[in-house]
Amino acid sequence: MSDNIEVCTWAPDPDADPRTFAYTFGGQSPVVSVKPGTVIDSWSFDCFGGRVQSTSDMSTSVCDPRFLNPQTGPFYIEGAEPGDTLAVHFVSIEPRNTWGVSTTVPFFGALTSTGTTSTLQPALLERTWIYELDLQDRLVRYAAADTKFTAALPLDPMHGTVGVAPALGEVRSSLTPGDWGGNMDTPEMRAGVTCYLNVNVEGALFSFGDGHARQGEGETCGVAVECAMDTVLIVDLIKGQPTPWPRIESDDYIITTGSTKPLEDAFRIAHTQMVHWVSDLTGQSTIDSYQFVSQTALTPVANVVDTNYTMVAKVAKEHLGNVTVMNNMHARMRAKAAAWRAQNGRK
Amino acid sequence: MSDNIEVCTWAPDPDADPRTFAYTFGGQSPVVSVKPGTVIDSWSFDCFGGRVQSTSDMSTSVCDPRFLNPQTGPFYIEGAEPGDTLAVHFVSIEPRNTWGVSTTVPFFGALTSTGTTSTLQPALLERTWIYELDLQDRLVRYAAADTKFTAALPLDPMHGTVGVAPALGEVRSSLTPGDWGGNMDTPEMRAGVTCYLNVNVEGALFSFGDGHARQGEGETCGVAVECAMDTVLIVDLIKGQPTPWPRIESDDYIITTGSTKPLEDAFRIAHTQMVHWVSDLTGQSTIDSYQFVSQTALTPVANVVDTNYTMVAKVAKEHLGNVTVMNNMHARMRAKAAAWRAQNGRK
Amino acid sequence: MSDNIEVCTWAPDPDADPRTFAYTFGGQSPVVSVKPGTVIDSWSFDCFGGRVQSTSDMSTSVCDPRFLNPQTGPFYIEGAEPGDTLAVHFVSIEPRNTWGVSTTVPFFGALTSTGTTSTLQPALLERTWIYELDLQDRLVRYAAADTKFTAALPLDPMHGTVGVAPALGEVRSSLTPGDWGGNMDTPEMRAGVTCYLNVNVEGALFSFGDGHARQGEGETCGVAVECAMDTVLIVDLIKGQPTPWPRIESDDYIITTGSTKPLEDAFRIAHTQMVHWVSDLTGQSTIDSYQFVSQTALTPVANVVDTNYTMVAKVAKEHLGNVTVMNNMHARMRAKAAAWRAQNGRK
Amino acid sequence: MSDNIEVCTWAPDPDADPRTFAYTFGGQSPVVSVKPGTVIDSWSFDCFGGRVQSTSDMSTSVCDPRFLNPQTGPFYIEGAEPGDTLAVHFVSIEPRNTWGVSTTVPFFGALTSTGTTSTLQPALLERTWIYELDLQDRLVRYAAADTKFTAALPLDPMHGTVGVAPALGEVRSSLTPGDWGGNMDTPEMRAGVTCYLNVNVEGALFSFGDGHARQGEGETCGVAVECAMDTVLIVDLIKGQPTPWPRIESDDYIITTGSTKPLEDAFRIAHTQMVHWVSDLTGQSTIDSYQFVSQTALTPVANVVDTNYTMVAKVAKEHLGNVTVMNNMHARMRAKAAAWRAQNGRK
Repeated sequence: MSDNIEVCTWAPDPDADPRTFAYTFGGQSPVVSVKPGTVIDSWSFDCFGGRVQSTSDMSTSVCDPRFLNPQTGPFYIEGAEPGDTLAVHFVSIEPRNTWGVSTTVPFFGALTSTGTTSTLQPALLERTWIYELDLQDRLVRYAAADTKFTAALPLDPMHGTVGVAPALGEVRSSLTPGDWGGNMDTPEMRAGVTCYLNVNVEGALFSFGDGHARQGEGETCGVAVECAMDTVLIVDLIKGQPTPWPRIESDDYIITTGSTKPLEDAFRIAHTQMVHWVSDLTGQSTIDSYQFVSQTALTPVANVVDTNYTMVAKVAKEHLGNVTVMNNMHARMRAKAAAWRAQNGRK
Repeated sequence: MSDNIEVCTWAPDPDADPRTFAYTFGGQSPVVSVKPGTVIDSWSFDCFGGRVQSTSDMSTSVCDPRFLNPQTGPFYIEGAEPGDTLAVHFVSIEPRNTWGVSTTVPFFGALTSTGTTSTLQPALLERTWIYELDLQDRLVRYAAADTKFTAALPLDPMHGTVGVAPALGEVRSSLTPGDWGGNMDTPEMRAGVTCYLNVNVEGALFSFGDGHARQGEGETCGVAVECAMDTVLIVDLIKGQPTPWPRIESDDYIITTGSTKPLEDAFRIAHTQMVHWVSDLTGQSTIDSYQFVSQTALTPVANVVDTNYTMVAKVAKEHLGNVTVMNNMHARMRAKAAAWRAQNGRK
Repeated sequence: MSDNIEVCTWAPDPDADPRTFAYTFGGQSPVVSVKPGTVIDSWSFDCFGGRVQSTSDMSTSVCDPRFLNPQTGPFYIEGAEPGDTLAVHFVSIEPRNTWGVSTTVPFFGALTSTGTTSTLQPALLERTWIYELDLQDRLVRYAAADTKFTAALPLDPMHGTVGVAPALGEVRSSLTPGDWGGNMDTPEMRAGVTCYLNVNVEGALFSFGDGHARQGEGETCGVAVECAMDTVLIVDLIKGQPTPWPRIESDDYIITTGSTKPLEDAFRIAHTQMVHWVSDLTGQSTIDSYQFVSQTALTPVANVVDTNYTMVAKVAKEHLGNVTVMNNMHARMRAKAAAWRAQNGRK
Repeated sequence: MSDNIEVCTWAPDPDADPRTFAYTFGGQSPVVSVKPGTVIDSWSFDCFGGRVQSTSDMSTSVCDPRFLNPQTGPFYIEGAEPGDTLAVHFVSIEPRNTWGVSTTVPFFGALTSTGTTSTLQPALLERTWIYELDLQDRLVRYAAADTKFTAALPLDPMHGTVGVAPALGEVRSSLTPGDWGGNMDTPEMRAGVTCYLNVNVEGALFSFGDGHARQGEGETCGVAVECAMDTVLIVDLIKGQPTPWPRIESDDYIITTGSTKPLEDAFRIAHTQMVHWVSDLTGQSTIDSYQFVSQTALTPVANVVDTNYTMVAKVAKEHLGNVTVMNNMHARMRAKAAAWRAQNGRK
């Protein structure tokens, strides 16, 4: 297999005018066209476009609100048509630099009023924290600003934003998650998983960005440990099979997502999707699958801070018996990733 | 220490008229009075009062809706006053029988309309599933009703309902969670943890029930693998220190809860509580603690089915440094539990 | 009919210890027992128990949070049993004094974070406004505190809190609305209307309070123009007919209510109740009634500030054709009210 | 003034391929460019593009879901720039035909589960109702399908969908409301009012559609009495003054809107906007304005069925004293409308 691995190395130009980057899903011309099965070896800016670099950089001062969360892409996937599913396997996700950044942003986050949960109260303090990323020891080093408290947290790199062009001709900000993926901000989106996205337009128009060195579940203050990412991924197609809401598969879990408000509706989406998926995989009736999922699902929050909130539901594959998920796409992509790594001397 | 362990063996009378049990938090006379530090060695009925025993027993036929989720208690804790915190350490939680039961209930659960998320659609099918509890191999054996699908799931016993009398003279159904605890339905409430509850009335009036052999996060269909439980727990007091919303401590995590609707508000409660708790423990300022919690919290859903929904936030103790939680109550209760087990030949 | 009008003049003792008043629905012994059809000629304290009397009285200083929103009652209605409906007709609702009071309360209200919509922001300013009630010209006179702005608003007296003992043995704070009525805070509850409440316990245990000289829809800051009220009402029973959620009938409208969170769920309750009620009254199928209600309902918000939010749905009787509502109870109570007024020289 | 009234008569081509119409706000080339102050004399298709014409036409059969709710426009307003406000005054809104149509749509509406409030229940019955529009007597004649029940309801024509291109480069479906306006579905949008919309892109790109012969507040089943509309409106600009969320002004009220989920957040937006607007108009401090709005606002629901829910807050101008709203734009547009009517012999 390794002989014929197609590789695409299209990458953002770090010196380009940031206004030329993609800040939406949909509404963008593709940067390059790739065949299904291609390995994309690229990178992404952090959500601030690299402009917040020290604790004295306030994001609302140094960033233009129209140009937040730049995406790498969109990639046109040849042969992708509405009704297909795009599979995206993350081979590796590694911080490009040895620092990450987080901030509080006025009227943004879960524990403040916002533009939609609107109150008459003043904003919380705006502040920037710089984290040291220890790529050797796989640690994210936190230091409090007001006291001497420090902590070394596990490095767990992931992409907050992964998606395709939406349906109905919509163009959505890269700050928003929905059924096209987008800014789901779930720590499940780490290296080794495969993400399944519905194809809504010809070529799918896949983009990704918003790398996090780590985040808590919920991304409570609205900003994770943000960093530019070197990312290798493989794209492929499952023809003729739609995927109504984004799904993720890891070696151990099948995972569904739902993104809307209120949060219980995001929960309902993720869990109805899981009930139907488990029913399809195991042959159980819907009501049996509802019972089974009720006793087996893990349900971590993804985010409660974006313009839609995202919930995740996970069921361990070991409970499902001997099932074939998505035409065995994840296993095949795992194999291709291994081949590519071997071929390229990458770990 | 083992010399003077007080033990209370008050337990429900399995032959009593079930209408004499406690179905509320508050509004009940205590069954017994115990000193702080007492080991309570008791048991609880399942949520159906033992009336749903086979797949042909429909809960809406065999149960009186006024008598669901009977609680063991209330226990009067001597010296407990408003402004104190009650600590409840679960020494062991073990199914009394080798079977558990789950059901779907018309217009109850997360993936159906309900009495409050009210629609004009018909109810889902009512059905009962009986699970085999393999206490030796620590497995919960599921069998689908409509197909031959089966699964062996890990046994993970817990109590869905743990609480005290509410404030403001309120009396709340044992089906409801809130700041008094109650029907929180989180799988975190397993043996080995300590639960902290605010004392709202003299004597606290602690009760527990709703044993689950296991449940998924969210308890999606509204009913876990319900079973009667043999439960040993220790009660103690932290005088002069209130706990606005129930908290849990395990060997590895500090855990906060929030119970309300919509689900994002339950999230907000759990996370503001966690921000303040971490700030108190580590000395960090509120805004630093907000940042720290945003990168470290695990946030599994507890339930999205009860009259209030419950969210949980967890932070690993290892990230907090060398801190003393709740006057070291958990460690002391752990030690007492070990002493009691040694004294009584219990594992 | 006028010969045999029973009248009950039980009233609160203005000099009593306020802690002896009723602050809950349920959990209270009745103050008096009355026959169905009795005219109750009484009065109620304002929600602060009369303790906030000037712009320098801050409610959080002068009130004990355990003793807010005192209710007049409960009245035991002879013959009321679970499964019946209690009808309460408001003959007159008149301010007892020529002043009313409103306040902002820290972390209470729709445009601030609260104990359940919890954020890390500081509270809004606490302030008290005193309104002049011009009972002659039927005006409520407002004066801004920080500028010279004034306004004369229509007097529109109503009761924010009207209810009975809840089901399931629950006891609920008078600050909360639900299916037992309680703190619904809808301006529809004015003189001339009949309120229908489900009987959950023997005797119903009816109470009322929380007079408002007027309020906006939503009661946005959480506090209306609060005042003590002289209130005359008639209670009666519709035997053998339950009313799942409180309903109101005026000369021109039938009105349903729903109280829960999120607000769309309160809307769903009020509207499913209206669809079923219109279907019952007009003989339309459920789906036709759904269509009809969709084109005819008026849907003002009641409150978005209490521990549950309340929505109202109204349909004009003139659109329903010649229907008999609730056994013609409203018309009969209207007639009795007229007879009582004639007999007593009251307008 | 009448001498120089500019008139634009651009109108949809009823014979055009419906896929060429505008189904989004943003993402469309303008159909025509007009000067501020221009009278636009045009019409709009009904939300089904005229395809549902009898009770045997089911919308899900005869309509393509990608082509629902066609908009008339977009109109490019010369000189409109981000930071300005577009004023749209509705001179007249009159049904083009003597029939209207409503339907139930599977998994759409407030009293059914939907794609986002997702359950496992089956859909409600799909059905179509045809209404007779009696333009002489100003009545909308309803006939139930399953019984002989009929009702004659007041004709109250309005536009459900009025908006401009969104900010952040987004393109939004005409089925969605938000801060750009869009599918707000409030009955307040009738002839005689002026709607204020923020200009987000050069030329504003204003469109309108979704005529309703009448609707209930909430548009509960998701579909009003839909009809094609002959509509005359005037567009104008308020330079250098943004309007964060759509506002409406009638002769008697100032009105704010908020569109999001959950519904209490839509309420919060509408009411914070109203507090700030009243503060600006009357000079009151924010906290005084909060108090004043709390006692004066009317708060009817607009819709609880679209992808965002919309709330409205209204305050009567008579309570505000002698204030000048939006540079007196509404009064000036009223005068121009009168002049145009006189000039054109229109009533």
